[in-house]
Amino acid sequence: MKISTGMAVLCGAILVTVPTGAAGQQTLAEKLGYDAGAKLLIVHADDIGVARSVNVATARAFEHGAITSGSVMVPCPWFPDFAAFYRDHGPFDVGIHLTLTAEWDYYKWGGISPAGEIASLLDEYGHFYATVEEVAQHADPAEAEREMRAQIERAIALGIRPTHLDTHMGSVMARPELMQIYVRLGKEYGLPVLLPSRGWSENLPQGMRDDLAAGLPLLDGLYMMLAHDPSKSWSEAYGEMIAAIGPGLNQLIVHLAVDDTEMQAVTVNHPDFGSAWRQKDLDFVMSQEFKDLLAAHDIRLVSWDQVRKAM
Amino acid sequence: MKISTGMAVLCGAILVTVPTGAAGQQTLAEKLGYDAGAKLLIVHADDIGVARSVNVATARAFEHGAITSGSVMVPCPWFPDFAAFYRDHGPFDVGIHLTLTAEWDYYKWGGISPAGEIASLLDEYGHFYATVEEVAQHADPAEAEREMRAQIERAIALGIRPTHLDTHMGSVMARPELMQIYVRLGKEYGLPVLLPSRGWSENLPQGMRDDLAAGLPLLDGLYMMLAHDPSKSWSEAYGEMIAAIGPGLNQLIVHLAVDDTEMQAVTVNHPDFGSAWRQKDLDFVMSQEFKDLLAAHDIRLVSWDQVRKAM
Repeated sequence: MKISTGMAVLCGAILVTVPTGAAGQQTLAEKLGYDAGAKLLIVHADDIGVARSVNVATARAFEHGAITSGSVMVPCPWFPDFAAFYRDHGPFDVGIHLTLTAEWDYYKWGGISPAGEIASLLDEYGHFYATVEEVAQHADPAEAEREMRAQIERAIALGIRPTHLDTHMGSVMARPELMQIYVRLGKEYGLPVLLPSRGWSENLPQGMRDDLAAGLPLLDGLYMMLAHDPSKSWSEAYGEMIAAIGPGLNQLIVHLAVDDTEMQAVTVNHPDFGSAWRQKDLDFVMSQEFKDLLAAHDIRLVSWDQVRKAM
Repeated sequence: MKISTGMAVLCGAILVTVPTGAAGQQTLAEKLGYDAGAKLLIVHADDIGVARSVNVATARAFEHGAITSGSVMVPCPWFPDFAAFYRDHGPFDVGIHLTLTAEWDYYKWGGISPAGEIASLLDEYGHFYATVEEVAQHADPAEAEREMRAQIERAIALGIRPTHLDTHMGSVMARPELMQIYVRLGKEYGLPVLLPSRGWSENLPQGMRDDLAAGLPLLDGLYMMLAHDPSKSWSEAYGEMIAAIGPGLNQLIVHLAVDDTEMQAVTVNHPDFGSAWRQKDLDFVMSQEFKDLLAAHDIRLVSWDQVRKAM
C-alpha cells in the first residue's frame, strides 16, 4: 500500500492515546481478555492478490503465524489464486483491500464492474487511475460504491469470509463522500473498517467525523515503514516502531513479497515498496528477532476477526 | 497457444504441398529472393504478454535471434510490460494474438472493451470463457469484432506496429462468422493472417473458403509441439518436425517461458503447455542444436513482416 497524502501523517508516526472505556464499559483489550491498558497489535499484510510473488510470501507468513491479518485486492490478476489458497488452506484473517487505483507503470488492472458502469474510475485504457489525487478528482461516488460493493461480493462469492475493510493507498479517504461509503459498507456488512483515532478527519465537515466513527473500533496507532533511512538496518527501523506502540488497538502494516523477476517488473521504477523492500519485510516478520521484539515490549497479537467479534 | 479441435489436425502434422506460382507469377520464396522451392520458416513465439515469465523468455529469444516472430495477447496483465520493452528495444516482428479465451484455472482476464459491449464473450465474473467451445456457443459476432478491433487498436496505441494477425487457441476458427471477421480485419489493416493452406475450411459454407483465402499467403505447413511422447527427447521431437518441413511458407509455433513460480502458478494443473514445457521450448530455440538442424535441412528463416511486404 502506498498512502495518500491525507493519511500519510499517521504512518510510521506514533499515536499514543490512553484507551479508556466510558464509566462501567470495558475497553477492547478487556473484551479480548487482556488488561485494560494492554498493547494490542494486528500484524497486517497488504496487497494480497496483486502478484503471485505477494501471494507466495503472504501464504508463507500466514502458515508461519508471522502475521495475524491481511487484505486482498480483488480486481488484481492474482486474486483468484489467493482465493483458491484460502479455500484449500484457510480460513485466514482476511479483509477487503478496497482498490480504486492501479499505481504501477506497466502492470495494470481496472475494476471488476462493467467499465460502462464505473467510467469515472477509469482512464482511457480502462485501467484505474494511478494516483489517489486522480480518484479524488474524477470519482463519481455512486460508481465508487458500485465497485467497492462488487469487490466485497466477489470475495465472498469466491469463498472468502472477510473480517474487515481497508483501503488501497488510502483512496477512499480521498473525499468525504467516499469515506462515508466506506464506513457505511463496513457497517452494512458488519465489518470493522480501518480507521485511525485521528489524522483522517481534518477535512471532513463538522459532525461527520463523529457520525462515521460511531460504533467503530478506531486504531490508537497505525505503523508502517514509509521510507527507509539508510543509516538504520531494517530491523532497527522496525524496532523503533515497535518500541513506540502504546496501549490500545494498533496495526502494523507490512508489504510482503518474494524478490523475484515478477515482482521486480511489477514494481519497476519504484524502489519504495519495491520488490527488494517487500522481501525485507517478509524476512523481518518471519524472523525470531520480530517475535522477540514483540515479547520484549509486552505486545499482544490480535486479528481483525477478534476485533469484529468484540464490536 | 492451445488449439481448438478444429485446428488440431494441422499442428505437429505434415502438410506438404509444392508451391507453384501461376504461369509467369513468382512464388513467395522467389519474391523473398530464394529459389522457387525453398523451405521458408517463421519461428513464432505465442502468448506474449500473458505473464512476466513469458515476456522475459521472449525478449531473450528475440535479442538472441532465436525466433523471427511472435504475437501479443493484448488483454493480458503483462501486455503493457512487453509494449514498453518493444518501444525501448524494438521494433520486433510482432503480430496480434487475437484473444477471446482465458484458459488457466486461477489467472484470468477479460476483454479490453467495456464489459457491457461484449457481454456475449464473458462469464459471470467478467472473464473470457476458458474454452473455444464456449466462445463458439456464446459469441455474438459483432461483439467479437468490437473486441478484436480494440485489441489491434490498443497495440497500435501502445506503439506496436503489428506485422500479422493470429488467434489464441484458434478461437476465431470456432465459427464461420468469426473467421470472416478475422480475415476481414487482416485485409482492412493490410496484415497477413495465420491461415494454413488446408485443414480449416471443412466446415465452411461452399465458396467461403476461396473468398477468405483470396490474396492471403497461406501456410504450407504449421508445426507445433502438441503433446510430448516421453520416449523421445524434446530435441528429437523437434528434429522430426523440422525434418518434415517442406517447400513453401511454414510456421513453427513455440511457447516460451522461464520455469518460475509465476509461470508454475499460471499453468497450475496443466502440464501440457505448462511452465516446465515452456522452459524446454526456450532452451531448445536458444540452442546451437536448433540452428544446426535448420541449416542441415536448408531452411530459410523469414518473418511475418517479410511475408506482409511480399503480399
